[in-house]
Amino acid sequence: MTYLRNAWYVAALSSEIGEKPLARRLLDQDMALFRTQDGAIGLIADRCPHRFAPLSMGVVRGAEIECAYHGLRFGRDGRCAHNPHGDGRIPRGADLPAWPTQERYGFVWFWPGDPARADAGLIPELPFNDDPARFAPVYGYLDVAGNYQLVVDNLLDLSHVEYLHPMFAQPEGVSAHKTQLIVEDDVVISKRWKPNVAIQGLARLFWTSPSQRFDARAHMTWRAPSAMVFDLGGTECGATDEDGVCLPQAHLITPASEFRCHYFWSLARNRQIDDAQAGERIRTVTQRVFETEDARMIEAQQRNMGAVSDMMSLRPLSLEPDAPAMRARRILAEKIRLEQEAGRVAAQ
Amino acid sequence: MTYLRNAWYVAALSSEIGEKPLARRLLDQDMALFRTQDGAIGLIADRCPHRFAPLSMGVVRGAEIECAYHGLRFGRDGRCAHNPHGDGRIPRGADLPAWPTQERYGFVWFWPGDPARADAGLIPELPFNDDPARFAPVYGYLDVAGNYQLVVDNLLDLSHVEYLHPMFAQPEGVSAHKTQLIVEDDVVISKRWKPNVAIQGLARLFWTSPSQRFDARAHMTWRAPSAMVFDLGGTECGATDEDGVCLPQAHLITPASEFRCHYFWSLARNRQIDDAQAGERIRTVTQRVFETEDARMIEAQQRNMGAVSDMMSLRPLSLEPDAPAMRARRILAEKIRLEQEAGRVAAQ
Amino acid sequence: MTYLRNAWYVAALSSEIGEKPLARRLLDQDMALFRTQDGAIGLIADRCPHRFAPLSMGVVRGAEIECAYHGLRFGRDGRCAHNPHGDGRIPRGADLPAWPTQERYGFVWFWPGDPARADAGLIPELPFNDDPARFAPVYGYLDVAGNYQLVVDNLLDLSHVEYLHPMFAQPEGVSAHKTQLIVEDDVVISKRWKPNVAIQGLARLFWTSPSQRFDARAHMTWRAPSAMVFDLGGTECGATDEDGVCLPQAHLITPASEFRCHYFWSLARNRQIDDAQAGERIRTVTQRVFETEDARMIEAQQRNMGAVSDMMSLRPLSLEPDAPAMRARRILAEKIRLEQEAGRVAAQ
Repeated sequence: MTYLRNAWYVAALSSEIGEKPLARRLLDQDMALFRTQDGAIGLIADRCPHRFAPLSMGVVRGAEIECAYHGLRFGRDGRCAHNPHGDGRIPRGADLPAWPTQERYGFVWFWPGDPARADAGLIPELPFNDDPARFAPVYGYLDVAGNYQLVVDNLLDLSHVEYLHPMFAQPEGVSAHKTQLIVEDDVVISKRWKPNVAIQGLARLFWTSPSQRFDARAHMTWRAPSAMVFDLGGTECGATDEDGVCLPQAHLITPASEFRCHYFWSLARNRQIDDAQAGERIRTVTQRVFETEDARMIEAQQRNMGAVSDMMSLRPLSLEPDAPAMRARRILAEKIRLEQEAGRVAAQ
Repeated sequence: MTYLRNAWYVAALSSEIGEKPLARRLLDQDMALFRTQDGAIGLIADRCPHRFAPLSMGVVRGAEIECAYHGLRFGRDGRCAHNPHGDGRIPRGADLPAWPTQERYGFVWFWPGDPARADAGLIPELPFNDDPARFAPVYGYLDVAGNYQLVVDNLLDLSHVEYLHPMFAQPEGVSAHKTQLIVEDDVVISKRWKPNVAIQGLARLFWTSPSQRFDARAHMTWRAPSAMVFDLGGTECGATDEDGVCLPQAHLITPASEFRCHYFWSLARNRQIDDAQAGERIRTVTQRVFETEDARMIEAQQRNMGAVSDMMSLRPLSLEPDAPAMRARRILAEKIRLEQEAGRVAAQ
Repeated sequence: MTYLRNAWYVAALSSEIGEKPLARRLLDQDMALFRTQDGAIGLIADRCPHRFAPLSMGVVRGAEIECAYHGLRFGRDGRCAHNPHGDGRIPRGADLPAWPTQERYGFVWFWPGDPARADAGLIPELPFNDDPARFAPVYGYLDVAGNYQLVVDNLLDLSHVEYLHPMFAQPEGVSAHKTQLIVEDDVVISKRWKPNVAIQGLARLFWTSPSQRFDARAHMTWRAPSAMVFDLGGTECGATDEDGVCLPQAHLITPASEFRCHYFWSLARNRQIDDAQAGERIRTVTQRVFETEDARMIEAQQRNMGAVSDMMSLRPLSLEPDAPAMRARRILAEKIRLEQEAGRVAAQ
């Protein structure tokens, strides 16, 4: 299908790319991810031009990946660097597509569009993943059998927490929240907060003060195509955000294909940052909730939508908390339209 | 595909609908079944109009079912009864299709055609499931990966028992049976009996007299589209049916889709009616035979027929015991044809 | 798809056909294999003409197979031989397609083309499977989810051993081998040998002499469509082949359908021929290598090729060791073309 191509997407968690290469379908393309012996990341088409073996089944030799079937080797730039057979010459047509990558904030990013425009400065900022003095992050990954925009919808409308996540629901219900929608150029911010409520949610796990009530906030910031930063926290009533429990998160969604996506997430905390057990505990809880509640629902939605990825074409009913996701969908659709148009102009 | 619509079909066993809603595909439509807090049964489309979540994943709140994703609530009539968001108004287009239901004889029946014609008096009579002084029924359900008419064929030609069910086969073989085909209006009765044979079959489990031989009968009565009542029993040679072992059964088949169906059954007994263990024993044996012998064969037939549901279009060979099923297929095809024709006339 | 039809293919290992019939898809046709009570092999269409039940679910009665659903019986020639119903007459149109079979060398062969041309003398010779005084064979079978020609490619280019089978790789690498390609009429011989190398590979398991080095050979002989004889062995340096360890093998590939094939193999040894444990050991090792290394790679290739069975249409890169497989592909394509043309002429 048609995706926004001139953008950074996440291909993998940094921790996923060790000694063994990794196969991953990204934007309808099968790719092989590997880490060279000096630590650089390669991302090339996962199909040897000789007999179409997946290179992700191969092994890394120095700066190259070697095909597991007949031994051709390829560099990070996709060029065939070694042919062990016959006179060793590299035949024409042996090179493979390769994509620019960046490793930052614990994620491997790639740029599926024009490589000349792959500016690392455009990677969304996740400073809390790069500030070990103040924050300790944990990471997770889910493979979701649904269109990536359904995951974005899920995250931009957190009213679902009251229904889908009984563990985090408020006794006051959905109406206890204050909300604000801010759109700044191409950025959509969906703010949601509850002043002076009973301590609840993830923040409760790190709450140590004797206060029984706090100011809670859950602000989601979306950037096209599908990168979200989530400012989750709770403070003493009336205090400033930074002085309370801060659980800043990244939710980064990458389409695998029309009906499947990769959901990468990180959750940092400014409490118990040296306590690895606390980190593992919150990682496990978060991953389980995403898998058994969010992903399960999104996959059921997709099954119910059948072979349709554009939910809007099915004329869904609109409710008040849908506004942020609708804005994000419109902004993304317009950016894709402009990119396609520019491509057609360039092709003339 | 095209089904007879103005008819009662079974949607579920009564015992399947407890506190949790149930998802079931019926006549090519995904439906949610639920029981309200006062015990009534609701059957509505299993797709919330807001974000297409399956309502069957939700929870019952009083007389309504609440969507598990964002909390819309719907009544048994399919109308959206509650919107927890914003000003709480119910948007237009929020109502869902709903179907008439009846709970009777241990089954939940529904009427997929014109609701005005859903006369409860048309539900097939199964008095033995409603007569606890004389009969104790047990119930079962199978999901069969084959067209529903293959199951009807199976039940209307019991000569297969001699080959498919070695446990119930007669030493005398298939030729020991007497058979009679009766067609009364739209009812097909396939009678099959064996006077004065060795005690065998299910009836043997309840035979207590010292006699070594009995008169056995196995009479199947079909009504369109796919409801069968089975009069199975054995009596002292020459005695009247009611005085012997009576195991009257219902076999009620509901299409899920072209290549899948639901097989609901009940088996009542007039012996050991207070012995729950005896009931559980016969339920287990019957369910196992249906699953490992009948359903296994029907699914193999369907696989061998490929993407064809109308077996007759493959020009099968006809043998003598096919006559009852062939009559039933012709009667049903004609009723569907007339219903379609009436629909076209009404639409003009 | 289009196959060479006037040829012997393997339908099964002899040991697979015991008392129970066997279902197998061969050249896009579902077939039932059975052994009559006097030991002859029947191969008929696996679809009863009555209600399309698979005959492979049935039982053998004397010289016939009986349908498990309603008891029709069929002979090895496909003719319906018994109808237990009604007056017992066999209706017209009750006969089934049947194919000529031969049991030889531990395999069941069948001829999918013109039965008049099914000359048993055309079965590839595997004398080592029929010479118990000198050789002890073991047998194996794999179901491979890939086009059959990918398996032929694999076997005609053994340079893959250095990469795909680390257990059998040479320290000297792929360049240590000498190779020769011989094409005699329709036979392709891919010779591959290494004089005076360290003892390695399967032959090592049977090497008992104190010599530390040997002459190794691995010669593959292909006959259309997909029958290969593999002369694998190792001898004292300079000695004649017969005096060393000989592990002659058959690799016989039969298409199931466009994207699936059956891989039958045998491996005979001229050492420890009375040692059943040694035989079981080498059978287990070989089967495991084929499954976890060769079949796994071939299935990955096929997935990477998508819904394409003709690898050449994807313009693969050619390397030096591809020559034998390319010759075999061309010879087979030409034979299929001629057969199709002759069919068209005959049909005029």
